[in-house]
Amino acid sequence: MESAIDTHLKCPRTLSRRVSEDYTPPFPMFVARGDKAIQQTVMAYFGVQFEDESKRPQALAAFQHIIGTFSLADGPLSHDLTHHVDNQDHHNLMAVAYWTDPAAYCRWLRSDDVNGWWSADERLDEGLGYFREIIAPRADQFETLYAFTEDFPGIGGVMGERGTGSTVSGEIEEHGYWGSMRDRIPASQVDWMEATEDLVVVSGDPSKDGRVIVRGHDNIAVIRSGQEWSAAGEEERNLFFDEILPSLQDGMDFLRDNGAEMGCYSNRFVRSIDIDGNELDESYNIGHWRALDKLERWAESHPTHLRIFVTFFRVVAGLEKLRLYHEVSVSDAKDQMFEYINCHPQTGMMRDAQALA
Amino acid sequence: MESAIDTHLKCPRTLSRRVSEDYTPPFPMFVARGDKAIQQTVMAYFGVQFEDESKRPQALAAFQHIIGTFSLADGPLSHDLTHHVDNQDHHNLMAVAYWTDPAAYCRWLRSDDVNGWWSADERLDEGLGYFREIIAPRADQFETLYAFTEDFPGIGGVMGERGTGSTVSGEIEEHGYWGSMRDRIPASQVDWMEATEDLVVVSGDPSKDGRVIVRGHDNIAVIRSGQEWSAAGEEERNLFFDEILPSLQDGMDFLRDNGAEMGCYSNRFVRSIDIDGNELDESYNIGHWRALDKLERWAESHPTHLRIFVTFFRVVAGLEKLRLYHEVSVSDAKDQMFEYINCHPQTGMMRDAQALA
Repeated sequence: MESAIDTHLKCPRTLSRRVSEDYTPPFPMFVARGDKAIQQTVMAYFGVQFEDESKRPQALAAFQHIIGTFSLADGPLSHDLTHHVDNQDHHNLMAVAYWTDPAAYCRWLRSDDVNGWWSADERLDEGLGYFREIIAPRADQFETLYAFTEDFPGIGGVMGERGTGSTVSGEIEEHGYWGSMRDRIPASQVDWMEATEDLVVVSGDPSKDGRVIVRGHDNIAVIRSGQEWSAAGEEERNLFFDEILPSLQDGMDFLRDNGAEMGCYSNRFVRSIDIDGNELDESYNIGHWRALDKLERWAESHPTHLRIFVTFFRVVAGLEKLRLYHEVSVSDAKDQMFEYINCHPQTGMMRDAQALA
Repeated sequence: MESAIDTHLKCPRTLSRRVSEDYTPPFPMFVARGDKAIQQTVMAYFGVQFEDESKRPQALAAFQHIIGTFSLADGPLSHDLTHHVDNQDHHNLMAVAYWTDPAAYCRWLRSDDVNGWWSADERLDEGLGYFREIIAPRADQFETLYAFTEDFPGIGGVMGERGTGSTVSGEIEEHGYWGSMRDRIPASQVDWMEATEDLVVVSGDPSKDGRVIVRGHDNIAVIRSGQEWSAAGEEERNLFFDEILPSLQDGMDFLRDNGAEMGCYSNRFVRSIDIDGNELDESYNIGHWRALDKLERWAESHPTHLRIFVTFFRVVAGLEKLRLYHEVSVSDAKDQMFEYINCHPQTGMMRDAQALA
């Protein structure tokens, strides 16, 4: 048994863990162990939005263009692709890309190919929406959690040396109790990770077409919480579709439609796809929260999430091929970017952003 | 808004609260504010046990004798009476009595009338079981929580000056999140309140008739969690009987029958009665746990308790006459007494106690 917080990220505590050193979790769970040289990661979500089904081929082409840029110099170490229908019944194709070298990400983003395409006037006239929501949490600002031990998705897939997959921890101590998510984030040793400011529209007008930039704030929490059933047998598929998915869908729909009052800025329950848009047997949720405490309060008190949790507790020790995981981060305002082109005003961070005073 | 921890019980923390100072609970809850001179309380459970219905009149007479001794010099400030059928289908009449002066309790317990009766050989030959389970938590070792603001039951009924009812706090900060129970106990500021020893039978043999004494250990946690519907209108009665009670009963039955593996030494869901044994419209649960962390883990992960919790969250703000409350304590081994006469071996602390090595 070992702490979820890797040895090089331990520091003298000013805040205590929720549970004592004698705590023993009820079943095994694991975290990704990364290259100790990694100081900061980049988690970048790139979206293409379209309302009408007839726009799908064009949207897919634009999406494929974005994915093509990942192969340019200094591109991401890995990426995966998704589709979802959002709170306004618009379709969204989204690619998430991961870097463990912020400087490489910066060079990539500023390259003529990438920056030129995003900044081009043509983007305004295509009848498509585009967005990029990018966070760069430091190594002490995120945690992972897996009910399996290899071939990690998401950030865990790139944290090894030279961008390989992470290694796996031993069984970790900090899970199986409310508050363990916070306890796994190294910054929690000394920092409440609170939000003290609001989202602000610093450029553009969400109610109109065109470009919009939203300024984030310190400690926005982002969770990617995933389910992969591609290798699952019939029993585990039934478990997922009959027992887990209904509560999960209810909870995700609730957050998508009622998140604002809970401190959930955005919630997208997405289905993984291949580059041609075909659905894969994987899904995940991407939730943006005002701060970790808002996510905690929802997770530990909302009936839908408690049902998910109870089911998870009941079945987790017996899972074989059904893969459940999450990654949760906070980040500094200066390490966040939320930009939109021609997206509807309820997209992403725009919905809850205040107009610039 | 104020801390559940009264000003005179605050101390410099070595352990942090689970939530930051910015936390705001989702609905109002209150705690008892006692006389600051109170240093230690006594919570004493006196039981009469009988298997056969035909013994009821005799058991009731013995029970009434015990209650009569409460009127002797140095007797308790208050008491209330209950009945329950236990894990072996035995009937149990139980009186709980409260003191806020341990010295007075001590004089009462050692008085000829009280000690003489308990120690008399006649107790061994009446075909009845007797037990007394007594804890004396210091003022920093317990907390209360009420969804109402007056006429507190239990310990809150005696903590005022000269044994009057307590006054009520303002709305408190530490509730509405898992871990708030711990955060309301003043000792949690500096102490994990862990259990490091086991229950031990130090005298007698539970498998045989006669007297048995079980030695407790530091930080046994005791919860009294109650429901009073005597003044509730039809709507709140329906709420209690149709929505709250079924889950509550399931959870309490589960703990009664499967508690050992969860760290629950004893769980009694009792119905309040008058001195003649007639049922009142009040019930509560008395649970003894190895330590607070075991109670926390059960409460925050067991489906029955999560259902109770979700229902409570949903209805609490609208409660008018349905009264829901609890009191939770830990205590030192030296401030615990667990004694049994002719009780079945699954009674109270006997079930999980080890034989003396």
